[in-house]
Parts: sequence; C-alpha cells; structure tokens
Amino acid sequence: MEHTPPFYASVDVRNAGFKLAPVDTSLYPGCWNTLTPSMMPLAVQAAMAAIEKICPEARNLLIVPENKANSTFYLSNLAQLRRIFHMAGLNVRIGSISPSIKKSTTIELPNGESVTLEPVIRAKGRLVVKDFDPCTILLNNDLREGVPGILEDLHEQFLLPPLHAGWPTRRKSTHFKCYEEVAKRFGKLIGVDSWLINPLFEKCSAVDVSTDAGMQTLRDGVDSLLGKIKKRYKEYGIKEKPFVVVKGDNGAAGFGILTVRDVKQLDVLQRKASGSAPTLAPVHDLILQEGVLTNERINDAFAEPVVYTMDRYVVGGFYRVHAERGADEDLCVPGSSYVPLAFAESTHLPQPGVRPGASAPNRFYMYGVIGRLAMLAASYELEATDPEAEH
Amino acid sequence: MEHTPPFYASVDVRNAGFKLAPVDTSLYPGCWNTLTPSMMPLAVQAAMAAIEKICPEARNLLIVPENKANSTFYLSNLAQLRRIFHMAGLNVRIGSISPSIKKSTTIELPNGESVTLEPVIRAKGRLVVKDFDPCTILLNNDLREGVPGILEDLHEQFLLPPLHAGWPTRRKSTHFKCYEEVAKRFGKLIGVDSWLINPLFEKCSAVDVSTDAGMQTLRDGVDSLLGKIKKRYKEYGIKEKPFVVVKGDNGAAGFGILTVRDVKQLDVLQRKASGSAPTLAPVHDLILQEGVLTNERINDAFAEPVVYTMDRYVVGGFYRVHAERGADEDLCVPGSSYVPLAFAESTHLPQPGVRPGASAPNRFYMYGVIGRLAMLAASYELEATDPEAEH
Repeated sequence: MEHTPPFYASVDVRNAGFKLAPVDTSLYPGCWNTLTPSMMPLAVQAAMAAIEKICPEARNLLIVPENKANSTFYLSNLAQLRRIFHMAGLNVRIGSISPSIKKSTTIELPNGESVTLEPVIRAKGRLVVKDFDPCTILLNNDLREGVPGILEDLHEQFLLPPLHAGWPTRRKSTHFKCYEEVAKRFGKLIGVDSWLINPLFEKCSAVDVSTDAGMQTLRDGVDSLLGKIKKRYKEYGIKEKPFVVVKGDNGAAGFGILTVRDVKQLDVLQRKASGSAPTLAPVHDLILQEGVLTNERINDAFAEPVVYTMDRYVVGGFYRVHAERGADEDLCVPGSSYVPLAFAESTHLPQPGVRPGASAPNRFYMYGVIGRLAMLAASYELEATDPEAEH
Repeated sequence: MEHTPPFYASVDVRNAGFKLAPVDTSLYPGCWNTLTPSMMPLAVQAAMAAIEKICPEARNLLIVPENKANSTFYLSNLAQLRRIFHMAGLNVRIGSISPSIKKSTTIELPNGESVTLEPVIRAKGRLVVKDFDPCTILLNNDLREGVPGILEDLHEQFLLPPLHAGWPTRRKSTHFKCYEEVAKRFGKLIGVDSWLINPLFEKCSAVDVSTDAGMQTLRDGVDSLLGKIKKRYKEYGIKEKPFVVVKGDNGAAGFGILTVRDVKQLDVLQRKASGSAPTLAPVHDLILQEGVLTNERINDAFAEPVVYTMDRYVVGGFYRVHAERGADEDLCVPGSSYVPLAFAESTHLPQPGVRPGASAPNRFYMYGVIGRLAMLAASYELEATDPEAEH
C-alpha cells in the first residue's frame, strides 16, 4: 500500500526444498508468449488495472522492444504483449530503436501471426511512430547497452518502467539488499527464519580480475560467503555442498555467470582476463550470491520456476527447463536452449489445509508469494534509485 | 472513468440473434458457486482491485447474506464468496440478520465444505459478530423485505453496495432509463442502432389491477409498447411475434413476471386480484419491457446468459438453462429449477477477425460488453438515487 509496484516484472525462483528464494528479478520481462492461454485473461485484467492506475486516459501505447528482430521467440513475446494491451483496450504499435529498422518491417511468426516493427521518431518532447502519437511508452528493453538519447527527457509521455529500471542504473546488489529487508519483515510476520526465503550475498566492487590483489579480494569474498552458508547448512542439518554464484552486478553483460564451490574455481577468471579474451574488460562490479539448489524436476531435467507480475498482481509463470545442466547451475544461460513450460494452474488459489508445496496449487502459490516479495523489493529499489526523488 | 462501478453485479442477457440486450441487473448477485474453477483467479484478482480502490486497509470483511439458511445452493454461493475474498487476502465471516439465527450455526454443504452463520450484533455505529469487528460489510441481500434498522447509519464501516442499491429504493425502470442513455451513446460510438442492444420499456405507476381503470392503463401501455416493437420488427424484416414482459418495478416481489403477446392475456391479473389471492396487493408500480427472445440453446433447452462483474471487471458468467420453458419466457422463476452452466471460456479474449458471435469466445466477449454497459448503467443509477449526493 505504501509503495508503487514495478509496472511488470519476472522473478526467477529456486526451490531447494529446504529453501525457496528469488535469484534474479527482471523489470523488462520477456517470454510473455510462454504463459498459457488460460492465464491471458488474468494478464489482460492486470493490464487494465495497471494502466488505470498510472494513466487512466491512455489510448495509444507504444512498445519499445529489444533489438532482436531475428529472434522469432522474442518477436512472439512482443506479439503476446501487444495482444494483452490490445485486449485491455489500447491501440498498440511497436516502435523499434534499432538502427537496422529504417522503415516499417513486418515479420511473419511460426504460428501465422506477424509483428510490425516501426522506426521510432523523436518529435521534440515526444516519441512517436508514423501517424501514431502514444500517450504511454512501454519499454521491453533492459537498456543493457546504455540509455539511448532518443529515450531521454520524454516528459510529455508516460515511460514505463522508468529509465532507472534499466541496467545502466540498476544493481543486483541493490535489489537483493531491498529484498533482504522485505524478507526479514515477512519472516518476522509469519515467524520463520528469513534465510529460508532469502539468498545471502556480498557485493564486490571494482574487482580487477587481471591482478593478484583483485583476485584475492574476490577469493576472500567467496570464502567468507561460503563460510556463512556452511554455518546455516550445519544449523539446519543440510548435507548439500554450499556454492556461490558470481555475477556482474549491473546485469549479465560482459561477465557471465560462474558457479563456485571452491575458491580454486575462480582461477579461470584470471586466466581469461590475461589470456585469450581481450574483449573482456578486467574490472567488474560483482555480486556474490548464495547458490540455491533447484529441486524441481520435469522429466528428470532441472527446472527453475519463473513468476510473472503486472502491477501488484501475479499473473502466471512457467518453468525454465534445461536437461543438460545441473541442480546448482544457472538455467538462464545466453545462447543455451531451454524449454519454457507454463504452470498448470494459477498462482492465486492455494489449497488451505494441504501441506505447503505438496500439491501443485500450493507450490505455485508459494512461488507467487516469493514473486510478490521480490516485486515489493523492486519497488523499494526503484524508489531508492529514482533520480527525480526528493531525498 | 467518470463513474464508480457497482461493487459487484450480475446481468441477465438475452441473445435473440438479431438483438442482444440485458433484461435484468442484480446488484447483490448470488450463484457465485456456478462460476468455473478457472474463473476463480479472475474473481480473486478483481476482488483485490475492488477492495484496494474502496478501502485499501481492509482486513476484516463481514458478509451479510440473504435469510436462506435452508438452501444449500445459496449457502454454496456464500462459501464461494467467502473463498474469493479470503483468497484476496481478507479475513471473512458471515453475519446473519435472520431472526432465526440466534447463535453461531454451522451447516455442512454437499461438497464437504461448511458455512458458519453468526448472528450480527449492533455495537453503536458498528455491525459486528462475536470477536470480529469488520471494517467492511459486503451485502449479499437485496433487502427485498425492507431495510432492517440494524443496517442503517453504519457510518464507521464501509457498507458495500450502499443501502440504496436494495429494492426498497431501486426501480427497474430507473435502471433501464440509465441503460437506454448508455446504449444510445455506445450505439452512436460504434455506429449501430441502439435498439439492437436496448430493450424498449414503459413505466406504469400505481396500477390498480382490481379496477377497470387500472387495467385499461395497463392494456394501453402494453398495446403501445407492442406497437413500437412491431414497427421495429417491420423495419428490420423480423418475422417473430413481438411480446412484452410485465414485472414489478421494485424487484420481483409480489407481482411475479408475465409474458404478454396480446393484451387479452392481461385479464388473468384482474381475475387474480379479485379472486383467490387475497395476499396480492392490487396496486403495483410496473415496468413493461420489450421481450427479447433467447436463441441460445443447450441440448435443445433454452438458455439465458448471465454475466458477472466485480468493480469494472467482467469475471465470468454462466447459462441459466430451463428445459421446460419457451424462448420468450423468463428463465429466472422463483421456485423453478434450472441448470446453471458456466461459460466455457473467459469473456476477456475476443478472436479478432472472426465474425461476432460465430465462435464461443466472441459470443462470450459480446455478452461481457453488454454486461459492462449494464454495469455502467447501474453506476449512473446509483449516483442518481444516492440519498447523500449533493444535487
């Protein structure tokens, strides 16, 4: 009630059985095409509520996508987003900021639909496409490459989410700091140790992995975090081997994701930096995150639930499934193939009286609760990083 | 945007093929148990939005039901309403105003659930049940028998819907006057004759059916309305025989519902009034409404779609099916049995490019649109009849 939820979000959740925690929160979610048809009415209704709250008079919506005109999977995501907001009562067009889209370009999709990408035009304080002046702009682009000038100072239009939700401003460590606060308050409220829903983390700023000093800082950080996790595992009698996931703090760009059970595994970074990868900048802001095992299986493959929210509503989710990766590995690897598998049931209807997680409805409901906590954390985060906020 | 939707509503719709119109709007809808499980998440999400808008800090909700403790069908409706608002995050209890509920009474339902009716207690400006002080009271009682004093002057609590949504204040003719205005504006907007979505009607006040003069007024009204419908049928080349439905203007209490193709059929009223029904008061405020045929069939039985709304959202609907009644008859007869049959799909997702009504999704979507127009009419109506409004 006291905070403004992010316009939309997707939350990667990991269910270790003994622990259930978010490991990543996207504020420009893709993969909307993966939700089942039965979740569409919920998404449409949530879109109506979200638009009503922010700009009730909205008629024209311009979606600004990633520059991925070659990915039919991504374009199917755009088609689904367009459908959701069209069904919610808006006129929707897709305005590309890609330099390669010089004129209106229609691309056929495998299911027979098509998507038309139109080049955006900057008209003074407004972003438009030909013959279409939107009152609201929906970013589906995480701005990983930086904020393009054409999106700046759009004071006459609603820009959703705001630019500071993009990776040039966002830091995963800020998000998880906020999440920690939310998890502690929630844990206190329901009387459980917040560690059971909160992944421990350390921030490791400006680490130069090409120097011995930088590597030592990193090794110390990982060692300290592994020690903290070990202590918790001992406390709860957990026999698994702790691990730490090392990621770039400002999104996945450049650094990639590394799973570490032993500090020796970090040596690969130094070799990379000094060796055959000259494009890899040696200095990184890193986040060291407690690894959370995933115990969900679909046909023997490891699966990671992803929860989708719009405004304050959980609208659905899916499993990211990867047959060739292990329970401790990140399943969202650039370039790797995975099978998105929609949740069979909504996240709205727990079965009271049945053990948490025992039935699919209750498992999905739990994921929805964790997704909502991460969404609340994102709202704290966006408030704290708002460049226009009065502090 | 300019009006406050009724908290919840159900709209009886009739689809004659050449015409699609609402014939009745309830502001205290029952039968929530008839919605399919797949519509529950939509209802929960709409309940969250509705509660957030009216009283975001609401925690405790008291449902005040009809005095129908003997009907397991009605009690199943209460169980479903309780589930919806519980899932939306509220503590829910059911507080009966029935004189026969003197202590907390638990009734088992056929599906294994149970409903507990607790006697309400009036504590100064508040309505409570034992150990439960609600901030919000949800009426599921159309107040047909009059407004009980125990519900008056509850200025410290939110009472939803307000008392003037009950039949002591409501008049069907006021609702349909408002609907006519909505239908005209909507017809103009989409370029269709508003008659195609609007049932003609006449108000007939203080008709004493025991006198010849009263009967003549009624005959004249019916004759005039039949003439107007005939003219429209001729204009559109419709071969059906027009008919008029005569109902009590203040709900169905007392008068019942009469289908009239010829004024001679009205004579039965006079015989009733002068004959064997001494309890029937002879003076009535009546509404004469254009009969709309229902062309929907389920296994050869006539079916009438009913659309459910909460706040501004259409959450679902069902068919009221009655094998023994005709296409021109009212299917909501007190005491008659009917089969409620949930819509197979949501009303949110039309299939663009497919002819209206040709596919089930488009038919349900059309019903949803008419339901929303009737909901808007109800919001006009409640504003116009609000005793606390400044005129």
